[in-house]
Amino acid sequence: MVEPMRESALAMDGADPLAATRARFDLPDEVIYLDGNSLGALPAGVPAALEDAVRRQWGADLITSWNRNGWWELPGRLGDRIGRLVGAAPGQVMCGDSTSVQLFQALVALARMRPGRGTLVTDGTGFPTDQYLAESVARLLGLRLVRARPDALDAVVDDDTALVALGGVDYRSGELWDAATLTRTVHERGALMMWDLAHVAGVAPFALDDIGADAAVGCSYKYLNGGPGAPAWIYLPHRHQAVADLPLTGWHGHAHPFRLDDSYAPARGIERARIGTPPVLSMLALEAALDVFDEVELAVLRAKSLQLTGLLIDYVDACLPDVEVVSPRDPARRGGQVALRHPEAYGVVQALIARGVIGDFRPPDIVRLGFAPLYLRHVDVWDACAQLRDVLESGAYRDPAFAARSTVT
Amino acid sequence: MVEPMRESALAMDGADPLAATRARFDLPDEVIYLDGNSLGALPAGVPAALEDAVRRQWGADLITSWNRNGWWELPGRLGDRIGRLVGAAPGQVMCGDSTSVQLFQALVALARMRPGRGTLVTDGTGFPTDQYLAESVARLLGLRLVRARPDALDAVVDDDTALVALGGVDYRSGELWDAATLTRTVHERGALMMWDLAHVAGVAPFALDDIGADAAVGCSYKYLNGGPGAPAWIYLPHRHQAVADLPLTGWHGHAHPFRLDDSYAPARGIERARIGTPPVLSMLALEAALDVFDEVELAVLRAKSLQLTGLLIDYVDACLPDVEVVSPRDPARRGGQVALRHPEAYGVVQALIARGVIGDFRPPDIVRLGFAPLYLRHVDVWDACAQLRDVLESGAYRDPAFAARSTVT
Repeated sequence: MVEPMRESALAMDGADPLAATRARFDLPDEVIYLDGNSLGALPAGVPAALEDAVRRQWGADLITSWNRNGWWELPGRLGDRIGRLVGAAPGQVMCGDSTSVQLFQALVALARMRPGRGTLVTDGTGFPTDQYLAESVARLLGLRLVRARPDALDAVVDDDTALVALGGVDYRSGELWDAATLTRTVHERGALMMWDLAHVAGVAPFALDDIGADAAVGCSYKYLNGGPGAPAWIYLPHRHQAVADLPLTGWHGHAHPFRLDDSYAPARGIERARIGTPPVLSMLALEAALDVFDEVELAVLRAKSLQLTGLLIDYVDACLPDVEVVSPRDPARRGGQVALRHPEAYGVVQALIARGVIGDFRPPDIVRLGFAPLYLRHVDVWDACAQLRDVLESGAYRDPAFAARSTVT
Repeated sequence: MVEPMRESALAMDGADPLAATRARFDLPDEVIYLDGNSLGALPAGVPAALEDAVRRQWGADLITSWNRNGWWELPGRLGDRIGRLVGAAPGQVMCGDSTSVQLFQALVALARMRPGRGTLVTDGTGFPTDQYLAESVARLLGLRLVRARPDALDAVVDDDTALVALGGVDYRSGELWDAATLTRTVHERGALMMWDLAHVAGVAPFALDDIGADAAVGCSYKYLNGGPGAPAWIYLPHRHQAVADLPLTGWHGHAHPFRLDDSYAPARGIERARIGTPPVLSMLALEAALDVFDEVELAVLRAKSLQLTGLLIDYVDACLPDVEVVSPRDPARRGGQVALRHPEAYGVVQALIARGVIGDFRPPDIVRLGFAPLYLRHVDVWDACAQLRDVLESGAYRDPAFAARSTVT
């Protein structure tokens, strides 16, 4: 294995069609940020957008902003823009609430579409909140809960399966599942398929409409750069909208919200996926963040993502024999992050942070590094690798100061 | 009835102990804002707080802000501050999500505490979202739904009633219910009591702990001035926390969220009421908004609120014979808003808005005016009354331009 050279990384940056988008973010000079898969960096347009949101829209226009400044349409407007990034035509994505809340909505709605079936299958290696909500929904609706890895679906999905809920990219290993094939398998057995695209949207390809997904959810604070706790979203394809029976029947999803009727009647179309009053300030931050994607071709984004993760893997293979690459080497099976295994992963992550390389730790032994192609350079990857090498060779990861354990996805 | 004089209103302002708090808001000069019960005005400290949240906390500190800037503790910290305003001791209120979502949480949790009972009673004149969520929960759990006015509870609550859900102030009439007596009635029959305090928090007195409420929810964008779609909150008293079985089992509510376990185990205490990643930017705006309340005595706030609403009622009684005051004249039964009835209420509201007096319309015939004591002057009330008189006497409310109907709570 040949050791990658820093000059090669610089040359890749010179040829990078996305090199200019880095200037559309406010990044601290002293940091190499490999955690955009947890919290995306600040798009440079956001501060001014929020200033306008607060001073003019809220402060001056006050309640009239719901009409005058289009606050009412904001969740659907953002939904359509997110939809484009995950292969959903307009009118099928609604933005709002947290991923956990949207998971609940989607799981209950799909389960109600298969009333004769008694099993909910969820990804047994998926992100915890997905499993927790699946547990809760199974208990509420009296379903049996089965946990399985996506690559073991074949053995568990049968004619009692109402729905299957999977993450598009494994949050730990970064494996990008073959969503088309998995969805087909689930459909062949008469079940419905829901995808959690939190680790997909904004970095990896997905074709919700084309593969015939029955529902999807995701967040917008990772690769979409919407800011901390930015609103999540839900996808319900046109063909299910008239029957989708969503449990969180907030008044914004009513067919005639301003009639203030006493009884609930869901809106037609994706509007029924609205719940209560949305967090407008957070949504306006997200709107400004999504502007960056307007001029980006998704195929170009994906190509750069694979170059960045590939460069890391090449370096580890060539120079760091004690580190195991957990993520798939096959580019077709790789999302936007790379997981490395090391017995002292927590100390490694902390030592890297002390040197300005921010990644995160996933118990028990994973160093998880995310690569946001909109603002990361190839040379950043090389420099992070060099720091990692130094941390390992120097033993800096054994510093007793790195004893406490706490992290946030 | 004696016509109130403008000079008297000015004199009341001169003696107002809350006169100085008006300077802590950025209010447009040309507007008299009587819709703080829908969307509170902008506290002057919010823009700088959000600028810091975006540029320093998000932009520079990035993912480390969850620890470094206390984002993780934000929902509970805000919950305690809101709790003080509604009579809840610390550790019983959690901030997050929308009121609709919190209603779902509270209704399901309380219903599960009374498994042998089959009826959910809700306020049949309550805000629509409260009724819609009650419908949804009743259907999910197989409960019978009974709608009743709060003053007719006695006839419907019986030994089959699992829980009763009411609004603390009627969103249309502004009536402040006798929460202590109603809660006692419900408890005497073995049922549990939930209060929606959206129209109470920040303007009217409430004593959640003292009356023994079993749960409560509310929003923070009305009298708490948290901004458009600011996060809601839920109250669960200490005595119920260990058994509260909440359906939205997001990973932030887990006993050990960072262990990323596969199975859900709720946190001890109010932490179990957390759901998913909260909207941090909206929460930091709310935090700055709540600073205004730090130096305010609730009894003083309430006294001024009653003076403001009382002044409006006196004016209407004396000068506007065609207008009916729907809200209670008894101060003990009045919240922070006044509802006036007029057959052309929609046109009246629109004509007032055209003159810079912002209130809102509630179908079919209600002009709803809210009075935020933190930033409204008595002379504002008098001036708004004079405008209302002119709108009615001139017939300006019949302008055909006021044909379309749309409004947001």
